[in-house]
Amino acid sequence: MIPFRKAQSCAVHVSGGEFNCAANLSDGFGMRTAIATAMVKYPIGELIAGQVRAMGVTPHYKMFDHDGVHGPNMAAVYSDRGFGVRGPVVFYNRSNEAAARLKPGDFDWNSIFGAGVRWFHSGGIFAALSETTAELIIEAMRQARNHGAVVSFDLNYREKLWTASGGLSRAQSVLGRIVDNVDVLVGNEEDLQKGLGIRGPQVAAKSKLDPSAFFGMMEDVLAKYQNMKVVATTLREVHSTNRHTWGAVAWVSGQTFVSPTCELEVYDRVGGGDGFASGFFYGLMSGESPEQAVRLGWAHGALLTTFPGDTTMASLDQVRAFAQGGSARIQR
Amino acid sequence: MIPFRKAQSCAVHVSGGEFNCAANLSDGFGMRTAIATAMVKYPIGELIAGQVRAMGVTPHYKMFDHDGVHGPNMAAVYSDRGFGVRGPVVFYNRSNEAAARLKPGDFDWNSIFGAGVRWFHSGGIFAALSETTAELIIEAMRQARNHGAVVSFDLNYREKLWTASGGLSRAQSVLGRIVDNVDVLVGNEEDLQKGLGIRGPQVAAKSKLDPSAFFGMMEDVLAKYQNMKVVATTLREVHSTNRHTWGAVAWVSGQTFVSPTCELEVYDRVGGGDGFASGFFYGLMSGESPEQAVRLGWAHGALLTTFPGDTTMASLDQVRAFAQGGSARIQR
Amino acid sequence: MIPFRKAQSCAVHVSGGEFNCAANLSDGFGMRTAIATAMVKYPIGELIAGQVRAMGVTPHYKMFDHDGVHGPNMAAVYSDRGFGVRGPVVFYNRSNEAAARLKPGDFDWNSIFGAGVRWFHSGGIFAALSETTAELIIEAMRQARNHGAVVSFDLNYREKLWTASGGLSRAQSVLGRIVDNVDVLVGNEEDLQKGLGIRGPQVAAKSKLDPSAFFGMMEDVLAKYQNMKVVATTLREVHSTNRHTWGAVAWVSGQTFVSPTCELEVYDRVGGGDGFASGFFYGLMSGESPEQAVRLGWAHGALLTTFPGDTTMASLDQVRAFAQGGSARIQR
Amino acid sequence: MIPFRKAQSCAVHVSGGEFNCAANLSDGFGMRTAIATAMVKYPIGELIAGQVRAMGVTPHYKMFDHDGVHGPNMAAVYSDRGFGVRGPVVFYNRSNEAAARLKPGDFDWNSIFGAGVRWFHSGGIFAALSETTAELIIEAMRQARNHGAVVSFDLNYREKLWTASGGLSRAQSVLGRIVDNVDVLVGNEEDLQKGLGIRGPQVAAKSKLDPSAFFGMMEDVLAKYQNMKVVATTLREVHSTNRHTWGAVAWVSGQTFVSPTCELEVYDRVGGGDGFASGFFYGLMSGESPEQAVRLGWAHGALLTTFPGDTTMASLDQVRAFAQGGSARIQR
Amino acid sequence: MIPFRKAQSCAVHVSGGEFNCAANLSDGFGMRTAIATAMVKYPIGELIAGQVRAMGVTPHYKMFDHDGVHGPNMAAVYSDRGFGVRGPVVFYNRSNEAAARLKPGDFDWNSIFGAGVRWFHSGGIFAALSETTAELIIEAMRQARNHGAVVSFDLNYREKLWTASGGLSRAQSVLGRIVDNVDVLVGNEEDLQKGLGIRGPQVAAKSKLDPSAFFGMMEDVLAKYQNMKVVATTLREVHSTNRHTWGAVAWVSGQTFVSPTCELEVYDRVGGGDGFASGFFYGLMSGESPEQAVRLGWAHGALLTTFPGDTTMASLDQVRAFAQGGSARIQR
Amino acid sequence: MIPFRKAQSCAVHVSGGEFNCAANLSDGFGMRTAIATAMVKYPIGELIAGQVRAMGVTPHYKMFDHDGVHGPNMAAVYSDRGFGVRGPVVFYNRSNEAAARLKPGDFDWNSIFGAGVRWFHSGGIFAALSETTAELIIEAMRQARNHGAVVSFDLNYREKLWTASGGLSRAQSVLGRIVDNVDVLVGNEEDLQKGLGIRGPQVAAKSKLDPSAFFGMMEDVLAKYQNMKVVATTLREVHSTNRHTWGAVAWVSGQTFVSPTCELEVYDRVGGGDGFASGFFYGLMSGESPEQAVRLGWAHGALLTTFPGDTTMASLDQVRAFAQGGSARIQR
Repeated sequence: MIPFRKAQSCAVHVSGGEFNCAANLSDGFGMRTAIATAMVKYPIGELIAGQVRAMGVTPHYKMFDHDGVHGPNMAAVYSDRGFGVRGPVVFYNRSNEAAARLKPGDFDWNSIFGAGVRWFHSGGIFAALSETTAELIIEAMRQARNHGAVVSFDLNYREKLWTASGGLSRAQSVLGRIVDNVDVLVGNEEDLQKGLGIRGPQVAAKSKLDPSAFFGMMEDVLAKYQNMKVVATTLREVHSTNRHTWGAVAWVSGQTFVSPTCELEVYDRVGGGDGFASGFFYGLMSGESPEQAVRLGWAHGALLTTFPGDTTMASLDQVRAFAQGGSARIQR
Repeated sequence: MIPFRKAQSCAVHVSGGEFNCAANLSDGFGMRTAIATAMVKYPIGELIAGQVRAMGVTPHYKMFDHDGVHGPNMAAVYSDRGFGVRGPVVFYNRSNEAAARLKPGDFDWNSIFGAGVRWFHSGGIFAALSETTAELIIEAMRQARNHGAVVSFDLNYREKLWTASGGLSRAQSVLGRIVDNVDVLVGNEEDLQKGLGIRGPQVAAKSKLDPSAFFGMMEDVLAKYQNMKVVATTLREVHSTNRHTWGAVAWVSGQTFVSPTCELEVYDRVGGGDGFASGFFYGLMSGESPEQAVRLGWAHGALLTTFPGDTTMASLDQVRAFAQGGSARIQR
Repeated sequence: MIPFRKAQSCAVHVSGGEFNCAANLSDGFGMRTAIATAMVKYPIGELIAGQVRAMGVTPHYKMFDHDGVHGPNMAAVYSDRGFGVRGPVVFYNRSNEAAARLKPGDFDWNSIFGAGVRWFHSGGIFAALSETTAELIIEAMRQARNHGAVVSFDLNYREKLWTASGGLSRAQSVLGRIVDNVDVLVGNEEDLQKGLGIRGPQVAAKSKLDPSAFFGMMEDVLAKYQNMKVVATTLREVHSTNRHTWGAVAWVSGQTFVSPTCELEVYDRVGGGDGFASGFFYGLMSGESPEQAVRLGWAHGALLTTFPGDTTMASLDQVRAFAQGGSARIQR
Repeated sequence: MIPFRKAQSCAVHVSGGEFNCAANLSDGFGMRTAIATAMVKYPIGELIAGQVRAMGVTPHYKMFDHDGVHGPNMAAVYSDRGFGVRGPVVFYNRSNEAAARLKPGDFDWNSIFGAGVRWFHSGGIFAALSETTAELIIEAMRQARNHGAVVSFDLNYREKLWTASGGLSRAQSVLGRIVDNVDVLVGNEEDLQKGLGIRGPQVAAKSKLDPSAFFGMMEDVLAKYQNMKVVATTLREVHSTNRHTWGAVAWVSGQTFVSPTCELEVYDRVGGGDGFASGFFYGLMSGESPEQAVRLGWAHGALLTTFPGDTTMASLDQVRAFAQGGSARIQR
Repeated sequence: MIPFRKAQSCAVHVSGGEFNCAANLSDGFGMRTAIATAMVKYPIGELIAGQVRAMGVTPHYKMFDHDGVHGPNMAAVYSDRGFGVRGPVVFYNRSNEAAARLKPGDFDWNSIFGAGVRWFHSGGIFAALSETTAELIIEAMRQARNHGAVVSFDLNYREKLWTASGGLSRAQSVLGRIVDNVDVLVGNEEDLQKGLGIRGPQVAAKSKLDPSAFFGMMEDVLAKYQNMKVVATTLREVHSTNRHTWGAVAWVSGQTFVSPTCELEVYDRVGGGDGFASGFFYGLMSGESPEQAVRLGWAHGALLTTFPGDTTMASLDQVRAFAQGGSARIQR
Repeated sequence: MIPFRKAQSCAVHVSGGEFNCAANLSDGFGMRTAIATAMVKYPIGELIAGQVRAMGVTPHYKMFDHDGVHGPNMAAVYSDRGFGVRGPVVFYNRSNEAAARLKPGDFDWNSIFGAGVRWFHSGGIFAALSETTAELIIEAMRQARNHGAVVSFDLNYREKLWTASGGLSRAQSVLGRIVDNVDVLVGNEEDLQKGLGIRGPQVAAKSKLDPSAFFGMMEDVLAKYQNMKVVATTLREVHSTNRHTWGAVAWVSGQTFVSPTCELEVYDRVGGGDGFASGFFYGLMSGESPEQAVRLGWAHGALLTTFPGDTTMASLDQVRAFAQGGSARIQR
């Protein structure tokens, strides 16, 4: 309830698009997952490493020493959940961030992927950190493809970050080069327009929940990225910070799939998008139909907004029950 | 907000259908009430006894020693309130439960009831604990009737408990024998069907709030239990864990009474049913009309869902004001 | 969630209509503000003085010694926020209150106002404390006018307080003498009727949000107080303790201005009225149009109900964005 | 850790010398106890009544209505536990206190004591509240004696209170008249000197724990109050707010009894004196030797300083074990 | 501060002698560890499994289904930390405990140990659970020896548990059979006397910190268990619940090693013994001298008592610094 | 109790040597104080500005915009209080810190000091931030002297910071140039040796509390800084994180002054040194004798370690009472 400017204490959460997906797939869906990232040897690093471990994610860390004063640092994200008519607020301290120093060659992908990788995922926030992080993503995607993995990317277009690293034109150039290597793309209309320069919807959507505008952009996506197999996104109408209407859609090899919609009472909206992505990927990886994969992603993202923090506290049984149309009736 | 599987702390509440009614009638409605139950000499027992006393309920305890390791134990109920689209979850550790050892002869009913008992109440959870608890209920009901008390019973059909003690047919046989002694029965359509084997509604209800299906079952109830005077239940439509529509109804000697309905913002739904029962019993005992009794039960149950824990924090003034159509406007 | 009668701890907030406005204008809107009030030399006084300072309000204190036993005391207001169908409850311990001893002559208005006062504000709760407080308000208003300040007053009619200090007729007589000195009056229909004896609306409003009844009373207000320039109020429909529909209106020199309405999820309703008043005064003082002033007051009052406590935690940017039709979408 | 002047929340406890003894004897020692006191019909009164009930104390209330504004009120005691070199601080708001209105005739002592009273206890704080409270104590003591009860009184001399109600000479006159009716007196050297005008110790004690000075005053006590049977007190050396050395002594019909001493880590010192008194009274009432009674009082007072609040959370087993020389070794 | 009988909430910790050692060695000392134990499919099981994972311990679970009512259950340990003169209290609900059902054959030791086990550890609490758990320990110890592992056992004699499973003579018979397979034994004088029937010290120790009595028992231990290589224990003098003097000693192949002693301010004493054992094992496994191993165990056990919960929050650097004589001076 | 590596939440405090002194002198001692520093326009800056205001310190801010991603930032200090044998740990994120950009010319000293400055204070942490901060300190000191102010400096030698900005030789050169402008120097033996290159004590001190070694260095200090009028420091022996022995000393124009010593139970040691400095400065500024000034500083520093956070919660009355030898006895 208390905004950051009046805070006297704050809760500590570990988050990040790639980590959230890996953590959700491990802790909530029971899959084996790993992350490759930067880790700094200092108490904040230990705290983060502890949470990575707690969520069952295997770490591959490029280690950095901290000088006790200036870093390099693990990025700090400050967020205030908001309430009612007051929206959530998020800002960063990414100064001298260790992750921005990551570059091609830092990880032994052959060894990491050699154990039998099936899926590789990254996103637009990490891509925006520095010149080298985007190249690292491309390096990893190519190697992952060589090992037979599906490659996914969440555009997650953040204007502030790209402004700080070259602006819109650099964003589109960098993201375009990345998306050339991608099978499964996650992003909403705005991500597609701003991040990839795709033309906006030609027809106005009737509502935030109407998928026709999003699907109408697929032709242009395909024209630019002929090998794209899947494009998916959540649809969210924000009535207030605590009440959203929630849906999800996917275009899969020319076919379109639309989840049910539901009314959400939102405790913490951050992480809902990664919740969708991880549930959707789980469905695709575990042999579910695209329709069921969209439903699982939709259900998991919905449940995720009822927990504090950005990673899952749901169980697979809960996700499946909600995807099947489960209600909030008491279980006893 | 945090589900049990991620919990780092938990709140301690004392609950139980019979205790909840006694506690509500004492603390909220100012009546003199007592319970007869099992009590174990160990810190959890002391904690429970303290809360019994705090709610103003006179205890009649059959005492058990705890061996420090295996029990006998006071039952533990674990519950997670859920949030929004995520439903509440309740489960038990009733292993080696002291209460299951209670049996006819354990209490001196003459002395307990001799002081002038006006009402006796029990319920289906206690009935399901063991072979002897059902017999104890019947013994107590007969003695209570001899002392001129009204006898009520809340079916509270819990499939898990009956599965563990003999299944559906035993449930119906046991509950049927109990209900033969009952004047006032509390239970919804499902309780009547599963617990007593009454035929389900012949016409589908238009909604969860439509009382016609429930009232339609009364003929069959009366056929089986000719002396039944009152059958009552709450009606609840669960939009989400935190938003319910709430009503209550009673069949009283052939007449039907229906409360208003209201939209509830639910903080903790558990205890709402006992909240209705206790308010309703209060109305009947204090000479209110059946219509007003239903309203008092409905109002009290509604208020109870706005508090943590399963017992009341409302005052009689608040209950009366809400029953009269009171609003949530500020009182100052 | 826990009502006062079951409380085991309570949060401490500093509040008061005049202080709330001064604190909001300072902390939220960046203006220089001051209060003149009673202060007792004891830890509760120090606590209050600390919060006055923390909100950036310059204090002018008439100091009192506390005898350690009976006072004089700073007033205590006990409030329970309520939840859902359960309304908030507020009551006082104003026995031997230092503020009630304040009287004309206690403050050196020339020195206080001499630094360039632009606005003076008081309200009906302070007016009701004792015979001398009303006289002090009138003294201060006259001096403020002499220094060229706008004079405002919030009727805030509280029946309990006036009953304790002379009843309805004394209230109307006292408040009438005060309002003779006022340029900007804050109060809803009930305040105008009970506090000033203005005739009630001649036509029933269609809803609590319909401003026509309120505006319909302006003719009578003007008849009685020919120099009145502005009369403003909030409009609030209380669906439940946590859900209100919220609007605000002002009559300014014969013209009427109506804010948009919005659905509020209310965390703590107390302070919303002062939130409106302070935002509205800010608009008028900073050269905004009356329309925009009403919107700023409306927006600020809405945001204030999303914070704990009675004073603002909002920033001017947030208020402006919401007044412009801002949504609860995440800012990142 | 946070002093009152910086507090943002406070814990709510129910306390009072007579209540603390009654509550300790009931909750900790399993005896039947009652209090006769003032009770105000408002939420703070309900909160207090709830705690009286929770501690198992039978209430005899003289009821008062609260006007919502000025009272009459239940007294508020503000206390800050201090830490280390920083001492605890306690102050009151006793303005318009309901208890001060209590007077002879307010209680039906015949009915209260008729059920078989064995012990009556009161103390110097209640005696200081007003002219009528001292008379009420004397009335009750006489009636209690008539019913064969032991009568005890804890001098608890508080300078601030007596200053507010007539000063030292009135204190000594009032307390002297009360003590004329007393069998068992609780008070330290300072209480005896200031409250009763007994000459101070003629020989300096070697330390705060040396009982000789206290015992040296007994001759003078006996000279003044020939019927006095028992005088007892705790001995406490305060090394810091959190570290005390703790002992207790009693003079019983000419014999002296001294407890062991122990080093206390003090969580909350308030209530330790009542803790001693109640344990000591328990010992006397339950047929223990005076030596064992002193030890039980000493042990219970020591344990009480390890709990928050002013009333006991100890069990009789714990008290007995500590009185027998029990250590802080783990019990498992 | 609040004892169990007055608790309104409780913290949830995962504990157990074998788990604590595995968790400490993994999280604090950076070693690869695993546990073999029972796990129940229900939310408490998930919570425990999450904490096992969070501490970096590889689980080998024998899975059990929970019937929702009676179990089988994960054991519940209730503990109250005590304060000052009030000692800690621990008690159990081990009714229908899943772990007690574990038996020889439940784990595929070849596969578990085949990956290169260096050390196997178990303890007397698990041994006492049932007839089959002791046999399972012996089975595992034999297999571990076959794989070349060091075998250790912590006697942890708990009278209550053995009373419930056959009494002292069965305890000594069972523990004797287990210890026949042990290289490294952990236990204090009382454990050796009660658990193994070793004669008590022939000469009284000068204090709880004097190791001569413990070392004096080694001859008898060796007479009974000729192959014993190491016997170690902590020495603890309990001044109060929060102040202990702390030391540790080991007999290693005929030589004796004694740690320094230090004054502990104890936050939570439970887990200190496992803290010693794990630090001591780490020293032995990592090639430190026995002297340094004792110091590492002593230092780690000391640090562990400064954290809540029973498992480590220390880092290896902290342990090494304290073992080298590090002080509590601030690090900045 | 929980170290940073396991933290799930953290408290937010505003600190800094110069701010702490200004805040203590304002909030605790009732003086008018101001700070000149860097302020960033983002929520963390607003939070800090709020706390500056809450402590009554007039701000002179050089404002910086934050880009939402990289800064410039307000410095973050992470600290873990430790417990018992576990020492406190402090580390920073000072990357891209706004304060390091401050440089001569940034503040209008004439206007700031023109209002009648009596004292100027800075310290070695700010001096170490960058090349320009040291120059800014010298600029300010010269101007302060021109306005007749006393100039003080707290060496606060932090090795990590100087290592990051040029090492020991640069530290000594920079600090030496600063101290040339200083009247009152605060620093212990180690600060004098490392920060100023003064020869260490020629005779070993008998204990940490023995002031002779410190006073023995004064000759060398005076040889290097002939105009030095006062050198002062605290003396602290750390028995454990929570138990220190505490003293303070000052050399004033050739005379030496030594405070009493006391045993501290430490809640949070950080801020104790600034607590001494501010109390000592208060004494000197308010015309107390040097002896009394040392006592006031010593008393205030002692009290400060009993509060959370780095700034005072004490009142002048408390400080004076403790300086006079006040005890921790209860005040009521």
